[in-house]
Amino acid sequence: MCVGPAEALGLTLSVLAEAVDASAALVVPSSPVGAHTDVAEVLDFARSCDVVTFDHEHVPADVLEALVSAGVSLHPSPAALVFAQDKGAMRARLAAAGIPCQRWRMVSAGEGTTEEAMAYAVAAVRDFGAEVGWPLVIKTPRGGYDGKGVLVADSVEEVMPWLERALASDDGVLLEERVDFVRELAALVARSPSGQAAAWPVVETVQTDGVCTEVIAPAPGLGDQAASAISEVALRIARELDVTGVLAVELFELRDGRVVVNELAMRPHNSGHWSMDGAVTGQFEQHLRAVLDLPLGSPRPLAPWSVMTNVLGGEDEELYSTYRHVMARDPGAKVHIYGKAVRPGRKIGHVNVVGDDLESLRARASHAAAYIQGSVRE
Amino acid sequence: MCVGPAEALGLTLSVLAEAVDASAALVVPSSPVGAHTDVAEVLDFARSCDVVTFDHEHVPADVLEALVSAGVSLHPSPAALVFAQDKGAMRARLAAAGIPCQRWRMVSAGEGTTEEAMAYAVAAVRDFGAEVGWPLVIKTPRGGYDGKGVLVADSVEEVMPWLERALASDDGVLLEERVDFVRELAALVARSPSGQAAAWPVVETVQTDGVCTEVIAPAPGLGDQAASAISEVALRIARELDVTGVLAVELFELRDGRVVVNELAMRPHNSGHWSMDGAVTGQFEQHLRAVLDLPLGSPRPLAPWSVMTNVLGGEDEELYSTYRHVMARDPGAKVHIYGKAVRPGRKIGHVNVVGDDLESLRARASHAAAYIQGSVRE
Repeated sequence: MCVGPAEALGLTLSVLAEAVDASAALVVPSSPVGAHTDVAEVLDFARSCDVVTFDHEHVPADVLEALVSAGVSLHPSPAALVFAQDKGAMRARLAAAGIPCQRWRMVSAGEGTTEEAMAYAVAAVRDFGAEVGWPLVIKTPRGGYDGKGVLVADSVEEVMPWLERALASDDGVLLEERVDFVRELAALVARSPSGQAAAWPVVETVQTDGVCTEVIAPAPGLGDQAASAISEVALRIARELDVTGVLAVELFELRDGRVVVNELAMRPHNSGHWSMDGAVTGQFEQHLRAVLDLPLGSPRPLAPWSVMTNVLGGEDEELYSTYRHVMARDPGAKVHIYGKAVRPGRKIGHVNVVGDDLESLRARASHAAAYIQGSVRE
Repeated sequence: MCVGPAEALGLTLSVLAEAVDASAALVVPSSPVGAHTDVAEVLDFARSCDVVTFDHEHVPADVLEALVSAGVSLHPSPAALVFAQDKGAMRARLAAAGIPCQRWRMVSAGEGTTEEAMAYAVAAVRDFGAEVGWPLVIKTPRGGYDGKGVLVADSVEEVMPWLERALASDDGVLLEERVDFVRELAALVARSPSGQAAAWPVVETVQTDGVCTEVIAPAPGLGDQAASAISEVALRIARELDVTGVLAVELFELRDGRVVVNELAMRPHNSGHWSMDGAVTGQFEQHLRAVLDLPLGSPRPLAPWSVMTNVLGGEDEELYSTYRHVMARDPGAKVHIYGKAVRPGRKIGHVNVVGDDLESLRARASHAAAYIQGSVRE
């Protein structure tokens, strides 16, 4: 989704693609195939680039270190990226910076025999549950996304398999208080190496079965003061963690009015797709500007409301007929199809609509997405 | 400029590039090199495409005929395209359709000896000048653009070299009345093979030394009724000539209030670049939808005003520093750089701005373009 903005800005993209038919490789002329886990392949790729950035958080530390040692300009830097890769490190860092979060505890393997370590871990879970109340949210610190790597546990027994896996590895387990939230929000900002930053309006994200299905920009009913405070938190995280590029801060709005940080992502993010058609500067253009240390563009919305709905894969692998129908039914819908193979539940595209009437926009966007994926037929 | 929309729509582009470093080849993975004048190369290219369209009008008739014979789906069709390729054919066709035009006369080689033909041509020029008044506008029917191939002649003597060239070829010379216009307008529409059509707002185009420098959407001060009448003319031309894809109709608004058609282009056109950032559906997306017979998108503007200013090449071949300055000075300016080599006067990019205050938008767009090209430095 960077190709349009890169073309307009006169930039040349190059993608290290996981396969010759990866969706990015289909649209970027320079797309050498290589593994993001292979130091030599990534280094060889990076030598042809002025700046290297990421479209996911899963590049291993040894690869990042090798790039830094070779003098490659990496944005975000490994020192910032670790807080998007490792939720335990993120929690500790945000706590140190005084950023409001739900209560949490890291349980690591610790010392002693396996039995001693397990007994220690179980006691830690029991203590934390007693402190914040059950159920608890259990997370693997690394590698989870879209609800994968997350468990809502009602008892220590349910946590046991996670503890066993964690003690067999070095990663540990992150325990979090399950907060009583009324909705989820996201604050998207961009920050450049020279420290310029820009914030899009705070949005509401609607999740279904742990997967984001809808984003409303700006978040309805959020007061100016609350919105400013949240943007300020996101800008502060970007500054304190020295983030470069786009930073997405996912938040919970609690019943008591407090807002706490749930997750961080350091790249263009699903919660910012609305900006591609709904803001003067979309998130992919802004990410390119930021990582290249070009002056940032205006994040101003183009209309009072923008709504984005994800298209999830359905039963039908062929999208052409449904997508034609949606185009015909709603000439104002902006349909984005990613060129990925359709698998049930997989994010394979999204639809943006912008305008004045929020309810009508929500209805249009959700109908369009549901029709493309095949879950409605009228 | 089709790459962003094609990526979003999930379409695969392929470009027959004039050279490996052609600007389109730099951004389209499938860019075989070939000459648009070579039947075999174009045919070979076209066999891999579902639909073939054009980014200029200069594909020769024999190439087009060979494509049609081979069953290639061509949009616009050669039967429509000829009216964008040949201004004499265009004038005759528009006259037959009752479309308002300035008065005109084609002077062709005719019969007889060279002296007889020349005497006939000179008499025709003299007659036409006596009828409509000098000066006359003299055009080569084929191959002209951006003021090239156009002469404003005050006397028969000035026309003589053009007549000599015309009589040596088969093309003839087109004579046109020089109308007293107050400004130039353009009406951009798109039409699909199944006959669906959509019209963007009528725009004002500002020319400097025969080259378009600024476009204002919508045309200021044009009443709703006048605008509708002009859009209707453009839609009627698209229908009567069976145009598929984007059609740009360039017009003169005369002092007496009449509006006459000056030129046609059958492709995304400079007068429509504002729509890339100023309309729900930009002209490149709409052209792709139209030639593929996908339902057309909404041409609705995103703001009360959009202004586009062309960036013309200046003395400096390096644009990076000026373009960074413009980005920093105006975060709301949408800068498009085409990746073409800089030559003085060549269109190498454009700047779009959208908003509520026309005078401020015009000032911002023209400053940005002038700064990038190096003609202002403050």
